[in-house]
Amino acid sequence: MNGAAMKRILASELLGTALLVATVIGSGIMADRLSGGNDAVALLGNTAATAAVLYVLISLLGPISGAQFNPAVTLFLERRHNRGAMILAQVAGGVLGAMLAHVMFGLEPVQQGIKVRATPGEWLGETVATFGLLLTIRLGARYRPDSLPALVAAWITAGYWFTSSTSFANPAVTLARTLTGSFSGIRPVDAPAFILMQLLGAGAAVALSGWLMKEDKA
Amino acid sequence: MNGAAMKRILASELLGTALLVATVIGSGIMADRLSGGNDAVALLGNTAATAAVLYVLISLLGPISGAQFNPAVTLFLERRHNRGAMILAQVAGGVLGAMLAHVMFGLEPVQQGIKVRATPGEWLGETVATFGLLLTIRLGARYRPDSLPALVAAWITAGYWFTSSTSFANPAVTLARTLTGSFSGIRPVDAPAFILMQLLGAGAAVALSGWLMKEDKA
Amino acid sequence: MNGAAMKRILASELLGTALLVATVIGSGIMADRLSGGNDAVALLGNTAATAAVLYVLISLLGPISGAQFNPAVTLFLERRHNRGAMILAQVAGGVLGAMLAHVMFGLEPVQQGIKVRATPGEWLGETVATFGLLLTIRLGARYRPDSLPALVAAWITAGYWFTSSTSFANPAVTLARTLTGSFSGIRPVDAPAFILMQLLGAGAAVALSGWLMKEDKA
Amino acid sequence: MNGAAMKRILASELLGTALLVATVIGSGIMADRLSGGNDAVALLGNTAATAAVLYVLISLLGPISGAQFNPAVTLFLERRHNRGAMILAQVAGGVLGAMLAHVMFGLEPVQQGIKVRATPGEWLGETVATFGLLLTIRLGARYRPDSLPALVAAWITAGYWFTSSTSFANPAVTLARTLTGSFSGIRPVDAPAFILMQLLGAGAAVALSGWLMKEDKA
Repeated sequence: MNGAAMKRILASELLGTALLVATVIGSGIMADRLSGGNDAVALLGNTAATAAVLYVLISLLGPISGAQFNPAVTLFLERRHNRGAMILAQVAGGVLGAMLAHVMFGLEPVQQGIKVRATPGEWLGETVATFGLLLTIRLGARYRPDSLPALVAAWITAGYWFTSSTSFANPAVTLARTLTGSFSGIRPVDAPAFILMQLLGAGAAVALSGWLMKEDKA
Repeated sequence: MNGAAMKRILASELLGTALLVATVIGSGIMADRLSGGNDAVALLGNTAATAAVLYVLISLLGPISGAQFNPAVTLFLERRHNRGAMILAQVAGGVLGAMLAHVMFGLEPVQQGIKVRATPGEWLGETVATFGLLLTIRLGARYRPDSLPALVAAWITAGYWFTSSTSFANPAVTLARTLTGSFSGIRPVDAPAFILMQLLGAGAAVALSGWLMKEDKA
Repeated sequence: MNGAAMKRILASELLGTALLVATVIGSGIMADRLSGGNDAVALLGNTAATAAVLYVLISLLGPISGAQFNPAVTLFLERRHNRGAMILAQVAGGVLGAMLAHVMFGLEPVQQGIKVRATPGEWLGETVATFGLLLTIRLGARYRPDSLPALVAAWITAGYWFTSSTSFANPAVTLARTLTGSFSGIRPVDAPAFILMQLLGAGAAVALSGWLMKEDKA
Repeated sequence: MNGAAMKRILASELLGTALLVATVIGSGIMADRLSGGNDAVALLGNTAATAAVLYVLISLLGPISGAQFNPAVTLFLERRHNRGAMILAQVAGGVLGAMLAHVMFGLEPVQQGIKVRATPGEWLGETVATFGLLLTIRLGARYRPDSLPALVAAWITAGYWFTSSTSFANPAVTLARTLTGSFSGIRPVDAPAFILMQLLGAGAAVALSGWLMKEDKA
């Protein structure tokens, strides 16, 4: 692989993470403005937008960079390319995505997250969310590779509703969401625990899915 | 089949039923908290999460264990493996899923269902819901095997709204839902009639679908 | 084709139309009860249920009877089988579906529609809705036969929202909806104009789609 | 290509744009009437209808005319046919679609848009929306041609929620929406800036996607 190819991979991860975060935060702002305080309606809009953009971005950018957009995925599943550079591109993309969402809605580009997310239940939620995400990617890549974009979108749809933390499930997105004071933000001080739990869940999923798929190899 | 293979099948049924029940109950709690008493909005969130997780779990675990997660399905359609052990795994998974949902939301792990569901109309609802589910699985497996995950998700989406009982359609899920005092619970005393009607609907679907597909075999 | 095969076709059309109408009416009742008077939320639930059940029923019963469930479709597109018998099965299925929905929700099995639907705008709505439905079936069967269930479901999803009549688009469903006093009903006296407009739209679609697809045959 | 073939292409673009605009405006009117002022619920209905109709129209008319329905797409991606005639057909279709929506709902056929959409944030929104749309079409046509209808529908679903302008992303639709005083309208005086930004975003996407896909060709 030459340098131009690696540049495209990094651009793809940066672009994808930026549009993902812009959608998560932007749709949260839109939903919050329109819903008149009914947070369930707001979460419906937030869910539809996030699921839809995941389906699009993984379909389009998967063939270019693997469409990981997520350091937990890159850390555990990337084998061929420079993981450090990819994670940096994801984090940078997330920051740019947050700024893009804010500017589109006429807000301060960089803000500070104020939403408290610090209960043990939410930590468990992040573990479950990221566990399920990595399980989806690992088993999906084996049994239903063509449906991977739809599978990831569907897992996050479920996670937005059934996990108490609304499924951040992604360290780069978590960092980006510390930069917004809106609906989908998180206090910077709460981010490290979220990220730790995400890595824990990811590791557990890799171990379990390896065992679950053993039968096939026999 | 050796013991390790059977262990994977049981683990897959337990894991799948646990995540299914955690989604049904967890999204019900989330929806109830956010919706400010508008139960139709709550049911929309509950529906989206349940359909999405069914699509994911059946896609991923179908190749490992058949992704039944449902004693009514195992009883009527499983031919090769130990049905008793599979049903036990499903029931255990359901209980664990209910506990997981509660702990994520900071609630008592095991509760008692308080929602009264005991009208003849709801019994008919369960019969129709499970009849349609088994019909979907039987005809879907024959005519659209690749779409089975989407078909089951779509049937339950419809059932959540058009059956008066909101389509439990699953004895293991019914038992698990006796353990939650939240939105999606059911009184323990109301569970046996629900389960009986589910088995009735399942049996009817097996008989009818056999006849409907006869033409093809000729 | 022998008598047993025809019996299966008629049973399939009756069963499919019954479950379709039970979903349309049942989800309307559920949505109306839960939505606390917010008709847009009610229509969202109604839409999700109807689209989902159409996707399921056309996937499962298409290989058996063509999954028409609709006299306008049978009249214009059925070539091989007895159209009169099929239409009778559809109408009977619709009536049974309305009764099933009512009994599930503890209501009088047969009611009288009271919702006034009698403006020229709604007649135009039915024409457009049925025009689009037949166009979808004709072009879809040619260019995307595997996606036909999803295409029909998507057309009706759009139609529920953009046509002023909420897209009945089906004479058998229209007759069945004269038998419910609920959210999705229609006054019996308003049904004939709806059905006439549906046939008009269907005929126009058959003509136009024939011309649009000519290019391919050359 | 003979004249009859070109006539079918123009008819297909006119018909598709008309039904697209009728859905955008019609579902906006329906949603506004039913939602009792809850604009987030209204946008959910608007989103479902628009996404569904895009999926249908691109599936059906793609094989006939390419299903562009959008001068920004035609201008940048059409190679073979008369772009001027196609854009005229799209604009005419958009105007007819707006009139159709109004007549169905018993309103004045041609109205004047009154909704102010004139902030720099919204201009950025249109740039992002159209950038993403062209990226979706270019990369989608290369990597997932069969999923193009679903990909475009999903991008617009996301765009309705995460861009501050709700993703017009189409000059013909923008012009048509200056002719409605309803929920989805825009002041005529605000249209030129929207269209300019759409062309800017489209051009950027064409350049970037060309570079991103270079790797494949090597």
